[in-house]
Amino acid sequence: MRFKIAFIGFGVVGQGLAEILVDKEEELKEIYGFEYEVVAISDIQKGSIYLPDGLDMRKVLSMVSSGESLDGYPRGETGWSPLKTITKSNADVIIEVTYTDMETGGPGLEHVKAALDAGKHVVSTNKGPVATRGKELVELAGKKGVRFMFEGTVLSGTPAINFAKYTLAGCEIKEIKGIMNGTTNYILSQMEEGMEYQDALTKAQELGYAEADPAGDVEGIDAQGKVQILSNMVMGASLKLHDVEREGITQITLDDVKKAKEEGMRWKLVGSTKKTEGGVKAKVSPEKLPLSHPLANVMGPTNALTFSTDLLGDVTVIGPGAGKKETGFSLLVDLLNLNSTTG
Amino acid sequence: MRFKIAFIGFGVVGQGLAEILVDKEEELKEIYGFEYEVVAISDIQKGSIYLPDGLDMRKVLSMVSSGESLDGYPRGETGWSPLKTITKSNADVIIEVTYTDMETGGPGLEHVKAALDAGKHVVSTNKGPVATRGKELVELAGKKGVRFMFEGTVLSGTPAINFAKYTLAGCEIKEIKGIMNGTTNYILSQMEEGMEYQDALTKAQELGYAEADPAGDVEGIDAQGKVQILSNMVMGASLKLHDVEREGITQITLDDVKKAKEEGMRWKLVGSTKKTEGGVKAKVSPEKLPLSHPLANVMGPTNALTFSTDLLGDVTVIGPGAGKKETGFSLLVDLLNLNSTTG
Repeated sequence: MRFKIAFIGFGVVGQGLAEILVDKEEELKEIYGFEYEVVAISDIQKGSIYLPDGLDMRKVLSMVSSGESLDGYPRGETGWSPLKTITKSNADVIIEVTYTDMETGGPGLEHVKAALDAGKHVVSTNKGPVATRGKELVELAGKKGVRFMFEGTVLSGTPAINFAKYTLAGCEIKEIKGIMNGTTNYILSQMEEGMEYQDALTKAQELGYAEADPAGDVEGIDAQGKVQILSNMVMGASLKLHDVEREGITQITLDDVKKAKEEGMRWKLVGSTKKTEGGVKAKVSPEKLPLSHPLANVMGPTNALTFSTDLLGDVTVIGPGAGKKETGFSLLVDLLNLNSTTG
Repeated sequence: MRFKIAFIGFGVVGQGLAEILVDKEEELKEIYGFEYEVVAISDIQKGSIYLPDGLDMRKVLSMVSSGESLDGYPRGETGWSPLKTITKSNADVIIEVTYTDMETGGPGLEHVKAALDAGKHVVSTNKGPVATRGKELVELAGKKGVRFMFEGTVLSGTPAINFAKYTLAGCEIKEIKGIMNGTTNYILSQMEEGMEYQDALTKAQELGYAEADPAGDVEGIDAQGKVQILSNMVMGASLKLHDVEREGITQITLDDVKKAKEEGMRWKLVGSTKKTEGGVKAKVSPEKLPLSHPLANVMGPTNALTFSTDLLGDVTVIGPGAGKKETGFSLLVDLLNLNSTTG
């Protein structure tokens, strides 16, 4: 099928997808029968451009990488807002990759809603809308005969949501437990090598794993949002963010790590969501795991999820939890699944 | 969609699926819109029965478990051969779960071909037909507008083939490497605890992990077939079984295992298939892995595959490699994927 794509937001993740689409254009057509034009991009900082016949994406990527505003693109209409782009462009798929607000859903929520209302498919890595209103949005998509897909909201491109929904279809998932934040796992891995917490954090910041304000990672808030999404979208719960108990890694000392090592154990920041008689219980907290545990050996910025199921027992998936190409891929795989189930 | 299913072969794996279909009938309908009748079963030892309106599967399972021949089922036609059942019954999906012959494809090959020729979907855990003629059969299915699905041929129900094809769609897979035989991994894990090879093998036989003639497992032949399937069906090669180099675990001594342990290493029977300039290179052989390697910590009868990809780097999946329910699930997940992409 041939899709007309609009990007709402065109930061690292959007550009990651755009680069893959350009690089793999031929093989996507040949292997998957997937064809596309990018007809619009609307980004608060990078400008916006709408060209119904399709943009030259090599040109777009080179403009953006040299800091030129997309408003300077030689053809088409410029200056369209995200909402105008969503509703008035001829796009049939909206890639929503603006910034995340986990409490309110942020502008992303409005974008996703407007797109689905307009009968357009939405593919997104934006955690806010899924965490706050995911089920409602999936329902709305169903009513409108379109899809709302969000593989990249958990573990970037490492199969997580699609893994649960498609490759484990038919299994009842009783618990999901995992390492969902690469920054904290990197810090704990460095401490395992003897580094103090503060030094490991500084190194993570130097490498671009941690933000200048690291609270989102080290206090467990990022993992909390992912646990909320897995709870609501895979386990069928309706949890608010604060329903997910949370404790970060800031209280873990080098001494704790050394002591655990002597006992053949390892500290990990574990997120989990579990079906219980009283409903789904979800939390993020540091756990001391035996080295024989599949999650104990996941080191560095890598992520992992263990799904406990009725038919297969435990199944674990391990892979990257962030990255431009990796998160770009999460959008691509949703587009390819959309392609194989529509038209 | 409502499927009419025929089982060709009704041993442990077929019964595993049948039990799941009975137990989960309501939820499969509710969650996935999947409905079915089993219209026929043809098994060399358990008899055969054809009832176009659908069999009472609780009754069938109870007859089989008490050793009664299905020829004694109170209604319908009995005595149909597998080929007659495939071609003359009103089934639209054939579950092919007869025994495997890795060299010739065995009777399973004839069954799959006949079913596809008759325009019927085939879902199978039978390695022989996929290993010997997989690509041809997929092509034939395409021509006939039906599907040939075989998730369970590698790692039973742990996502392997579907993982590569759907959740990693769009990635180029450059190498697949893994632990594909649970029996040998169990034996090596026992040796890790200090048991001699022969004692560990005997224990594996007592637990039903290893056959009376253990050669298929310990000589690496079972893993060799799985590597052949991954090479041909995922990596695009056209390897014969003997193109996959093979060495089993019979030469590994308790002393080797102990020495590795002292070095912080662990012996594993590793199957791998890799794209190279000279084509796909595939082999099965014991490898001494550092404990930090994701495959080194996969213990007991568990299996694991690491996919090395262009967009995600390494992604690893770990789960059961055998079992009645687990292999039954592999057939179920293929049926559900068939359901979501047809009609």
